[in-house]
Amino acid sequence: MKLATLRANGTTTAARLDGTPVGGTFTEIPGYSDLGVLLAEEDWRGIAATASGKRHPAADAELEAVVPRPSKVLCVGLNYTEHILEMGRELPAYPTVFAKFADTLTGPADAVAAVPEDPDLDWEGELAVVIGRTAYRVGEGEAGKHIAGYAAANDISMRGWQARTQEWLQGKIWARSTPVGPVMVTADEFDPAQATLRTTVNGQTMQEHPVADLLFKPAQLVAYLSTILPLRPGDLILTGTPGGVGKGRTPQIYLQAGDIVEVEIDGIGNLLTPIGEPTRVPA
Amino acid sequence: MKLATLRANGTTTAARLDGTPVGGTFTEIPGYSDLGVLLAEEDWRGIAATASGKRHPAADAELEAVVPRPSKVLCVGLNYTEHILEMGRELPAYPTVFAKFADTLTGPADAVAAVPEDPDLDWEGELAVVIGRTAYRVGEGEAGKHIAGYAAANDISMRGWQARTQEWLQGKIWARSTPVGPVMVTADEFDPAQATLRTTVNGQTMQEHPVADLLFKPAQLVAYLSTILPLRPGDLILTGTPGGVGKGRTPQIYLQAGDIVEVEIDGIGNLLTPIGEPTRVPA
Repeated sequence: MKLATLRANGTTTAARLDGTPVGGTFTEIPGYSDLGVLLAEEDWRGIAATASGKRHPAADAELEAVVPRPSKVLCVGLNYTEHILEMGRELPAYPTVFAKFADTLTGPADAVAAVPEDPDLDWEGELAVVIGRTAYRVGEGEAGKHIAGYAAANDISMRGWQARTQEWLQGKIWARSTPVGPVMVTADEFDPAQATLRTTVNGQTMQEHPVADLLFKPAQLVAYLSTILPLRPGDLILTGTPGGVGKGRTPQIYLQAGDIVEVEIDGIGNLLTPIGEPTRVPA
Repeated sequence: MKLATLRANGTTTAARLDGTPVGGTFTEIPGYSDLGVLLAEEDWRGIAATASGKRHPAADAELEAVVPRPSKVLCVGLNYTEHILEMGRELPAYPTVFAKFADTLTGPADAVAAVPEDPDLDWEGELAVVIGRTAYRVGEGEAGKHIAGYAAANDISMRGWQARTQEWLQGKIWARSTPVGPVMVTADEFDPAQATLRTTVNGQTMQEHPVADLLFKPAQLVAYLSTILPLRPGDLILTGTPGGVGKGRTPQIYLQAGDIVEVEIDGIGNLLTPIGEPTRVPA
């Protein structure tokens, strides 16, 4: 099953995608203003499968971030084995973790505005894990049961601000800079070990890597992070990016207004992000 | 005016404190389930000043984190000038910023459980800024108008996990580990430049420092962070801790079950935190 959050009727609604994002149909799931609200229901699968609300041709639908208001977004750095080794680093014993906020997320087809304060705008294609059931101090063996599904994310990063201090956060949380979606594919229909993640900029492939190469796998991350604090329905874990980001290239390449960056994960779909003109207009 | 979030009637409610925390009275502000919800009202000051809901003797009241569900908690490290200089560091050009989540906060008199996974439990007494009006790309001159008031916080840190990787986050977000309160003193009644911050452990003074020594002041932090993303009513900024934490001592001192750590800021009040036995019981 593929679930999403639609912008419709001047607000948002949880919805189910039947068929493909091009030829298929979104059906609203009445009573649930977004996918995060739906996932708080114990029987979210049954409710989603049988919903029969208003229908929208998928090609015309406007999508919000797949979960627009998660209580937390946890992000992992340095998590693709080949990239770590090619950089001459040792494999880390623990995941490197940083945060994002709901205000940082944006829809899977939204433009992301370049910012006047930092010209070093970079891409990071990532697999996102969506929590379906509260996980607190769960072991790796049971952690998978707490995963509702998977989405794609682009952890668009302001490298100048990221490098201002030791902590990356201030380069990682700019308003409406992280597209997530286009849909959440439920865990029974998506195998991270079989998928490839691909990022292109203006059609040129920049990242192309098997998700199987993740050092800390989704279930391991759920177990590790749930030792620290409860993961709630709708919470997101961005699992890290493979090699090929703009900062790692010679010469370095950064995104500019007019560019189009696209992140695609087999079986999930794609995020197509036009980079917009820098703006100081309040969000 | 002093405002807070009370646990009452099986739920929580915003409340106004008249008089002192010992002899005074909390008056419920009907219709607002916590202080964050109240602050979303443009006329929160007028509503709070005239509220006449159910009254509770302050000495018996059970307090929740002053804002229990902020949309974001931004924390600043390395922000007291004397401490930076005595450590032989240069004054930084930019604030170091990390995050917490709502699940990390706890009430101002709650016990904080030691954790079995990390014996290096440390204190960090801090001044917390509470946002009262959405701030996005505001200048330093106008930033003060977006501050509703101030509270005390104890950024209790798990130093072992904090040092596992370059990013501090995983030592900073444990469930119910950061007391915030006891009340928010409105900005018109509190001058950070006049206050002293004091932390004691089992009655022994560990930190005692003028808040005036903050390198990046509250209004500067609001302006800086609001460049990145919107700060919403109820959002918290923890402004950093002065010298005297347990990790910085010779020998190092860490908190253990049975200890009592107390953070006090003149004009705001105190957080009295008993350290509880390690537990694996789900929150």
